[in-house]
Amino acid sequence: MNLALLFDEDFTASDRVKLTGRRLAHLHSVIKVKAGDQIAVGRVDGAMGTGEVIRLSDTEAELTVTLDQSPPPPLPLTLVLAMPRPKMFRRVLQTCASLGVKDLWLINSYKVEKSFWQTPWLSEQSLLDNLTLGLEQAKDTVMPRVHIRKLFKPFVEDELPALLAGKRALVAHPGTEVPCPTHLPEAAVLCVGPEGGFTPYEVGKLEEAGCQAVHLGRRILRVETAVPVLVSRLFDACL
Amino acid sequence: MNLALLFDEDFTASDRVKLTGRRLAHLHSVIKVKAGDQIAVGRVDGAMGTGEVIRLSDTEAELTVTLDQSPPPPLPLTLVLAMPRPKMFRRVLQTCASLGVKDLWLINSYKVEKSFWQTPWLSEQSLLDNLTLGLEQAKDTVMPRVHIRKLFKPFVEDELPALLAGKRALVAHPGTEVPCPTHLPEAAVLCVGPEGGFTPYEVGKLEEAGCQAVHLGRRILRVETAVPVLVSRLFDACL
Repeated sequence: MNLALLFDEDFTASDRVKLTGRRLAHLHSVIKVKAGDQIAVGRVDGAMGTGEVIRLSDTEAELTVTLDQSPPPPLPLTLVLAMPRPKMFRRVLQTCASLGVKDLWLINSYKVEKSFWQTPWLSEQSLLDNLTLGLEQAKDTVMPRVHIRKLFKPFVEDELPALLAGKRALVAHPGTEVPCPTHLPEAAVLCVGPEGGFTPYEVGKLEEAGCQAVHLGRRILRVETAVPVLVSRLFDACL
Repeated sequence: MNLALLFDEDFTASDRVKLTGRRLAHLHSVIKVKAGDQIAVGRVDGAMGTGEVIRLSDTEAELTVTLDQSPPPPLPLTLVLAMPRPKMFRRVLQTCASLGVKDLWLINSYKVEKSFWQTPWLSEQSLLDNLTLGLEQAKDTVMPRVHIRKLFKPFVEDELPALLAGKRALVAHPGTEVPCPTHLPEAAVLCVGPEGGFTPYEVGKLEEAGCQAVHLGRRILRVETAVPVLVSRLFDACL
């Protein structure tokens, strides 16, 4: 937690918050703050700044906050991800939030096992919790939006073309001929398949919708590694 | 396991291997092979190719192998990493192996907790197992070398200067002024700190040894995310 993310319900006045639960525990056990100390804070979807601890107990911390800095710029990226295996899903969410991905679409694919969609990590609260951890790691405040689409074909045929409009559209597909471009001057949509990849039918449908198939070289990377590699390659500016 | 990595002890003849244990279980339960099927194989530190399953039982699989392809090129990178927290260490090892890092130095730093060095994941066998998983993921055969240095100052003063000779040397340091370069034409040494970063004293020592402090932008990334972002940024060629 390099920044404590503040939600509306934390505010007791326009410049005052009370923290409990995970954030309080972190203040006590990791940062080991005491009254008078300052920590980095940010209001969800708003400004960042500092919070001064004015009172601290076992059950809550009270801080006065000054929010006068902008969060880092968002990545100009729409990320379309085949639903990952539950045991990596939380990390993928946190990684995406840390990297500045603000628009995440979780879609079905032939090699996405049906059980993946049953994971409790897909609940509204779990999504919010894990995205919060990613934002707090990266010192960002802007909550990513997550869209869940459990049917591949309707998504690709009916929704994807509008998402691609005016953007560079790519599907990461190991073994294809075109290398992934670098330093895009424009916003992009990037589709990343499941373990084992999209099927040829699926790549065909993504190409029909307007995506170009590109590869990252000979190495096959796990999604949690491929996403940072792709993001870093596509966007030249430091994150 | 996108490739089964073969070790000397697996070979019963120059073109024949017997697989047991984890790799056998994977053949049975994930790939679901049967006699006559072909899978990707590679000999550790050697060539890659295909293996044809000629016999399969509950206790072993026998394959004839044809090894006629080169593994992907190594990254021209020496990675110097402050010892990560044990719970992320295995993933970091696997990620480094997948990305093609071949030379990994695990070093101490003020913010590396002493207990991190006690992890059983640092045993020879655990290192080998996790690096193998990373190579098998990426379809590579060349085993990375891991060097363990539990004292910061002797490493930085006595060993690091020789490692840097003729290479671009960088230390990733959030908050510094120079952005991380892109597309290096040369081999590089990259130092990455622990959670919370290197101390100013440590950055000073790394700079004295010849490293340039560079940043990745405003976002603070976990080491398992920072490493793929940095590698992808430093080396233009697809991996």
